[in-house]
Amino acid sequence: MSWKDNIRKITPYVAGEQPQGNVIKLNTNENPYPPAPKVQEVSRNFSTDILNKYPDPNVTDLNRAIARYHGVSEKRVFSGVGSDDVLSIAFQALFCGKKPILFPDITYSFYPVWADLYRIPYQTIPLLEDFTIPKESFFASHTPNGGIVIANPNAPTAIEAGADVIEDIVKQNPDSIVIIDEAYIDFGDWSALSLLDRYENLLVVRTFSKSRSMAGIRIGYAIAGSDQIISAMNDVKESTNSYTMNHITIALGVASIQEQDYFQECIQKVIQTREWFCKELQKLNFVCTQSKTNFLFVSHKTIPAKVIFERLRDQKIYVRFWDKPRIQNHLRITIGTDEQMHIVLDRLKELIQLDHMA
Amino acid sequence: MSWKDNIRKITPYVAGEQPQGNVIKLNTNENPYPPAPKVQEVSRNFSTDILNKYPDPNVTDLNRAIARYHGVSEKRVFSGVGSDDVLSIAFQALFCGKKPILFPDITYSFYPVWADLYRIPYQTIPLLEDFTIPKESFFASHTPNGGIVIANPNAPTAIEAGADVIEDIVKQNPDSIVIIDEAYIDFGDWSALSLLDRYENLLVVRTFSKSRSMAGIRIGYAIAGSDQIISAMNDVKESTNSYTMNHITIALGVASIQEQDYFQECIQKVIQTREWFCKELQKLNFVCTQSKTNFLFVSHKTIPAKVIFERLRDQKIYVRFWDKPRIQNHLRITIGTDEQMHIVLDRLKELIQLDHMA
Repeated sequence: MSWKDNIRKITPYVAGEQPQGNVIKLNTNENPYPPAPKVQEVSRNFSTDILNKYPDPNVTDLNRAIARYHGVSEKRVFSGVGSDDVLSIAFQALFCGKKPILFPDITYSFYPVWADLYRIPYQTIPLLEDFTIPKESFFASHTPNGGIVIANPNAPTAIEAGADVIEDIVKQNPDSIVIIDEAYIDFGDWSALSLLDRYENLLVVRTFSKSRSMAGIRIGYAIAGSDQIISAMNDVKESTNSYTMNHITIALGVASIQEQDYFQECIQKVIQTREWFCKELQKLNFVCTQSKTNFLFVSHKTIPAKVIFERLRDQKIYVRFWDKPRIQNHLRITIGTDEQMHIVLDRLKELIQLDHMA
Repeated sequence: MSWKDNIRKITPYVAGEQPQGNVIKLNTNENPYPPAPKVQEVSRNFSTDILNKYPDPNVTDLNRAIARYHGVSEKRVFSGVGSDDVLSIAFQALFCGKKPILFPDITYSFYPVWADLYRIPYQTIPLLEDFTIPKESFFASHTPNGGIVIANPNAPTAIEAGADVIEDIVKQNPDSIVIIDEAYIDFGDWSALSLLDRYENLLVVRTFSKSRSMAGIRIGYAIAGSDQIISAMNDVKESTNSYTMNHITIALGVASIQEQDYFQECIQKVIQTREWFCKELQKLNFVCTQSKTNFLFVSHKTIPAKVIFERLRDQKIYVRFWDKPRIQNHLRITIGTDEQMHIVLDRLKELIQLDHMA
């Protein structure tokens, strides 16, 4: 026996590369626009003198701003250090049964990592050929389970399931908590928040990282169908670290929520760029799923995804590629500014031309 | 079976109250002085435009600043969201054996909470009557164990164990990782960092919350005797949340490290106030342990601690009291400014006088 035998062996989640310098970074679904002007204003005027005191462990100001924005009770809101923190705590707090939790085979690859970390049994449900959800497979009558997690819109597929699909899954699992991870929802058509009044077993998770251009400050939140879910999450959070959101984060989060027009404007710009860029890619023989997110999930009819990924990287354009079953011929491309996407398009045209000549 | 049966039942850590408004807050060991002026300067000039991008998941700039400050390799440094985050990850990553981990019966009350959360068996070792460590009880030959955690100086006792005690414990446990939690070390006499070259099973944990006046920004760190310890902690961290330290936190942490003179000056002021205040309390029939921290651990010869605690709170002076075995006649009083401590002293004098007249 050595102390080395007591060390945890685990395979961590692998985040997208964070290259520095003069690159076009379209690999981690960041928003190309800066946060709201009010965020800069609050930051500039922030007095660091108060930093000698601990922040509010209950994150009251931010939870209240979020609750008001969505028209829900503060007791139903939980905020954390990005939606990863919120989801990680939700897994720890809510999935303590013996039956496996369920999530799609192709989805956010952090889900199996949290399940492994917290020793939660899990089972993946294969998406259909077109990457849509086979909803019946998620019904408790079909697959007995200890909980469900569904990213909607899903990543990396970019596809959004409709209200009928999600509601049926929540309704058919009255004895399981169903988490709907809505990281990309502001670029989509509808939200499961509309179901919260009717289903106490539902938890909807959101983030400031994508639509609010604040990946760098780390704010995520969850809204639950029942106070008891939030209370269980708070118990786990307070058993880990009493104060996770610092003074500045709370202040900047509140500032972001207060500026709605800018927020909507940025979302519309991203959606417009996405729709235009998708059409341009189709002209180049790419196939895109119907994206309801700030990224596209694409494959080319003749050139392997890995080849495109590597050639783009050679030109300092970073997109995301996974060498995994079912998706190894796809790329996930974040929507940047029009200017950035024009450059990407030009590089792709050159690349395809070269390939034809080869 | 209901979804409620799958919810985690756990008793969370209870942090000190965070009263707002016009109070004298001496209950969570915060520093009465603001962070270094360079922290305000960096904050004021921070451009929130970069917040649309994720922060550096490896916290390179801050780890490098900490490594340079202590003259160690960057590979031996791990930073997190306060020392609570660092300790929580260390428990998860390093205490996976079947034997119980050991810590004193009177110490930081988060240790048993983390042990429960991560289902780590533990055994408490009673401190001696004078609250010092019975070092032999921590030897592997005496108490076989899967790891050890010792706060030094200890909280809430304020007492510092000498290098001989700590080194013997580390040396006598070659097959266990020994964590020395040095939250208060900058107010003390020596650091276990001096042992790191000789013991690869040692992990020293520090915080910016106390001596650096930055409780409100949440920065803690650990320095290990071996790269492998840091690597195991990184694996757990990356399995929980890729990005926990935001852009601003990293920048302000680096700024704090760069301003040494101010840091030393604040520490000296706190120590001077502590020594003076302790002598004044003794004149009032209080007994104080020999504090090497930014707080005093005191009991009064005739008036119960709970009475003093409640009367001070009535006057909007918050100190810390635990209704727990062995320490229910003690108070933990954080050292504030001279001005604050003069007020506390006046209130205590009145209180004692009233008590004598009663």
